[in-house]
Amino acid sequence: MEKPSLPKGTRDFGPAVMAKRQFILDTIRSVFQLFGFMPLETPAMENLSVLTGKYGEEGDQLLFKVLNSGDFLENVAAEKLQSRNSKQVLGDISEKGLRYDLTVPFARYVVMNRHEIALPFKRYQIQPVWRADKPQRGRYREFYQCDADVVGTYSLVCEAEIILMIKRVFEKLNIQDYTIKINHRDILAGLAERIEGTGKETDLYTAIDKLDKIGERGVRDELTAKGFTAESIDTLFAVLQTTGSNSEKLEFLNNTFGKLSHGKKGTEDLQEVLNLLNTYHSDDAHVEIDIALARGLSYYTGAIFEVKINNVTIGSVSGGGRYDNLTQAFGSKEPLPGVGISFGVDRIYDAMEALDLFAKKMTVSTRALVCHLDAESFRYGVSLIPLLRARGIPCEIYPDQAKLKKQLDYANKKSIPFTIIIGSEEIKSQQPVLRNMETGEQKNLAVEEIVETLTRLLVD
Amino acid sequence: MEKPSLPKGTRDFGPAVMAKRQFILDTIRSVFQLFGFMPLETPAMENLSVLTGKYGEEGDQLLFKVLNSGDFLENVAAEKLQSRNSKQVLGDISEKGLRYDLTVPFARYVVMNRHEIALPFKRYQIQPVWRADKPQRGRYREFYQCDADVVGTYSLVCEAEIILMIKRVFEKLNIQDYTIKINHRDILAGLAERIEGTGKETDLYTAIDKLDKIGERGVRDELTAKGFTAESIDTLFAVLQTTGSNSEKLEFLNNTFGKLSHGKKGTEDLQEVLNLLNTYHSDDAHVEIDIALARGLSYYTGAIFEVKINNVTIGSVSGGGRYDNLTQAFGSKEPLPGVGISFGVDRIYDAMEALDLFAKKMTVSTRALVCHLDAESFRYGVSLIPLLRARGIPCEIYPDQAKLKKQLDYANKKSIPFTIIIGSEEIKSQQPVLRNMETGEQKNLAVEEIVETLTRLLVD
Repeated sequence: MEKPSLPKGTRDFGPAVMAKRQFILDTIRSVFQLFGFMPLETPAMENLSVLTGKYGEEGDQLLFKVLNSGDFLENVAAEKLQSRNSKQVLGDISEKGLRYDLTVPFARYVVMNRHEIALPFKRYQIQPVWRADKPQRGRYREFYQCDADVVGTYSLVCEAEIILMIKRVFEKLNIQDYTIKINHRDILAGLAERIEGTGKETDLYTAIDKLDKIGERGVRDELTAKGFTAESIDTLFAVLQTTGSNSEKLEFLNNTFGKLSHGKKGTEDLQEVLNLLNTYHSDDAHVEIDIALARGLSYYTGAIFEVKINNVTIGSVSGGGRYDNLTQAFGSKEPLPGVGISFGVDRIYDAMEALDLFAKKMTVSTRALVCHLDAESFRYGVSLIPLLRARGIPCEIYPDQAKLKKQLDYANKKSIPFTIIIGSEEIKSQQPVLRNMETGEQKNLAVEEIVETLTRLLVD
Repeated sequence: MEKPSLPKGTRDFGPAVMAKRQFILDTIRSVFQLFGFMPLETPAMENLSVLTGKYGEEGDQLLFKVLNSGDFLENVAAEKLQSRNSKQVLGDISEKGLRYDLTVPFARYVVMNRHEIALPFKRYQIQPVWRADKPQRGRYREFYQCDADVVGTYSLVCEAEIILMIKRVFEKLNIQDYTIKINHRDILAGLAERIEGTGKETDLYTAIDKLDKIGERGVRDELTAKGFTAESIDTLFAVLQTTGSNSEKLEFLNNTFGKLSHGKKGTEDLQEVLNLLNTYHSDDAHVEIDIALARGLSYYTGAIFEVKINNVTIGSVSGGGRYDNLTQAFGSKEPLPGVGISFGVDRIYDAMEALDLFAKKMTVSTRALVCHLDAESFRYGVSLIPLLRARGIPCEIYPDQAKLKKQLDYANKKSIPFTIIIGSEEIKSQQPVLRNMETGEQKNLAVEEIVETLTRLLVD
C-alpha cells in the first residue's frame, strides 16, 4: 500500500508545534477579550452564493468548492457535459465552498442576525480559512486568521484601540522589534486629487502598492504608462518620500493638502488617532505613518494598518482598516461602518521561530513520569498519580513493565522534566526518587515533598 | 438581493453560545493535558485516498468531496461524461475530501511520522469533522470531536485512565447524573462461543446493538432469522439481562464462561480495570458493566465505552474503546494497539442546556462599560480604560457621543455587569459613578476604588 500523504499546501501540527501555536492563539484571544470583543464561529462551508463575487475574479478561482452529495451529475444538462465547460457545469454540481476569509462570513452573520445584534458590535473570530493558492514558502492552502472587528460606529477610538491591541499582542508574544504602518485612504485620495489623478485612483493605488516590490523606477514606469505626467509623478514621490516623525509627516501633509477635502480628512483622522493614543497613556512607539501603504484594492475607506516584524523576511503579519459598509456586498442598504484587524498566526509563528522568540519550556507536556521496577511498584506508582493530578500537575505513569532505561528514554523523548522512580526499596522507605531529567540530579523524598516540589515548580 | 443563508446542517455560534462551548472545550482540553495527552491538529482536507474505504460504503457516501481546482473537466474521458456515471467521474474531478472523524487522520499522521514518535504516544485532538448526513435534531453536518488516544501499549492502566478522565470532565462540567457503560469485545465473543455463534459474530453484535431501539422481541426475531436456535437466544438473554453490581456481573460472567478463552479474557480485563480504579483512589461509581453494549461494527477489539447523560433524550455523549492496530487500514504490518475516547461537544452542550447546567454568569463579555456625557468626559473615560485593562478587566468605552440611556441599553443588551458613568461633576470630584447593572445600585467612587472593586469581582 502506498504511503499516505497530505494534500499540497496543508500541514499537520504535532505536539511541539501545537504548544507554540496555542500560545500565540491564546495570547491573541485573551487580548481580544480584554478589549471587549466577543467570540463568533461560523461553519467551514458556506453557500457559494455567499462566497462568489466577493473576492474578485481571482478570488473566485481560489475558492475550494465542495461537490454536491449523491448523484451529482444526475441533473446536469447533456450539452453542458458535452461542451466540457467546467465553469458552466460548476453551478450544477457544487453549491458550497470553503471559507476564504473571516470577513465575508462575518458580514453574512450580521445580515442574518441584524435584529438580535446590539450595535456597536465587537466580534472576534479565530478559525482556519482555505485558498487554492499555489503553495510556497509562508503561503499555505489552510491557515488560521484571527480577526477582530467593530461595526456600527465611526469613532476613531476603535482605530486607537486596534493599535493598542497590536502593541499588547506583540508585547505578550515577546516580539519587540516590529512596525505598525498606518495610512488613510483619504490621504491616498488626497494625493490623487493633488496630482490630478481623480478617477484614476485604482491605477494609482495599484502602482503605489508595488513600491516595495518594484521600487521607485518601476512605479514611475507604471504610472507613466497609465498616463500620469512626469510632473505629477515627481509631486507624488515628493510626498511618498517624506521623512521625519509622525507629527512631522502629518504637518507636511497638512501643508500639502491645504483645503483639499479628502486629504484633510485623512490627515485629521490620523492626528486624532495619535492624540487618542496619548489619552490612553500610550504613545506612537512602533507606529509609523507610511503614505505609500495602500493595501491593494481592498474595500477599505478610512485608516489602514499593516504590521511587519523587523529583521525577518516574512511579509506583513497583521493588517486591517476601516470600511464604510460591511454588509454592502449582501445588498444591505443601511450602511454599517466598521474597522477591523487580522492577525496571521502562521506568519507570526514563522517569524518567532526565525527570531528564536519562543520560551524554551514551551511545551504542552507531562511534567512528571512515574517509573517503576516491578508489578508492586507499578501499583504503588498508580496510587501516586491522583495525588499529583489533584494539584493540577500533568503527569502519567509508564503504562508497561519495562526496563528503567526505556522508561527514562521515554521521558527524555517527550521532554518530560521530572521522573518519579519507584522500586521495592522506595516502597519500604515510603520515599520514591524524584529525578530532574535535565540535570540528572535525584533524591529520595517523602511523597508529600515530591507533590509540594512539583506544585511549586508548576507555578514558576 | 436574496437574504444569505447557511448550508443545511451547519450553524453559526454567536457570543452567548461560544462562551458555553469554549467552557466545555477548555474543560476537556485541560483534563486531556492533565493526563499527559499532547495536542495534534491535522488539516480539514485529506486526500480521498486516505479517507475512502475507511468508514464502510455508507461512510464513503457521507464524505464531503472537494472539487479539483481549475478546469476540472479537462481530462475526464468523454465516455464517462456521456454515461453520466457520477461515481466514475468522481475520481477524475475530486482528489480531496473533508475530515470525517479524527481517528483516520491520526492513524495517517502516525504512519507518516512513525520514526519521530515516541511510543506509547498519547495524543489528543479537538477539531470539527464533516459528514453529509441527513440533518436532524442533534445531528449536524459540521460538529466537533474531542479525541484522546494512547497507542503503543496493551496496558489496562489506559482503560482505567479513560474512565478517570470521563469522571473528571463531567465533574468539572457540573454534570452529576451520568453513566459510563463498559463492556469488552471478548465478552461478546465469549457469548458468541457460548451460544455456538462463532463465525456469526457480526449478525450477533448487530442484533444486540439494536436492543435499545427494537427491544427484546425485535432482537429475538432478528437472531431467529439469522439461524440462531431458540435455546441459544434464551441463553443469550439470560446473560444480557444479568443484574446486580459490577462485581456480581463479573462473577456471573466468570461462571458462565468457565474456561472459554475469549470470555475469560474479557472478564479478567474488566475486573483489572475496576481494581485499578481502586488503586487510583477512585471507585466504580457511575460505571456500569453493560453486556449488551456492542458499539456497532466498529474496529474495537477490547474494552468498549459509552457515556450517557441521564434524564435527557440525547444519545451517547462520549464513546471509545480498545483496538488492536490503529494503522492497519494503511497496510502497516507492525501492530499498533491502542485505546481511545471521543467526547461529542455538541451533544454535551445540548444536554447541559436541557438540564440547565451552565452557570448564569457564563459569558465571554466585557465586565465594564465606560459611559460619558460629553466630549470632555469621553476623553476622561478613555484615560480610565488602560487602568482597568492593566488589571485584566475586560472593558470598553462606548465609542460614540450618545444619550446615557442608549449607552446603558447597550450595556444591558451585551450583559455587561458594570458601567462607569462620567459627567462634568464626576470629573470635578474625580469620582466617577460605578453602577451595578443588575441591581441598579450606584455610587461615586475614586478611580482606584473602582479599579479595586472590579478586580475583586473578577476573581470571584
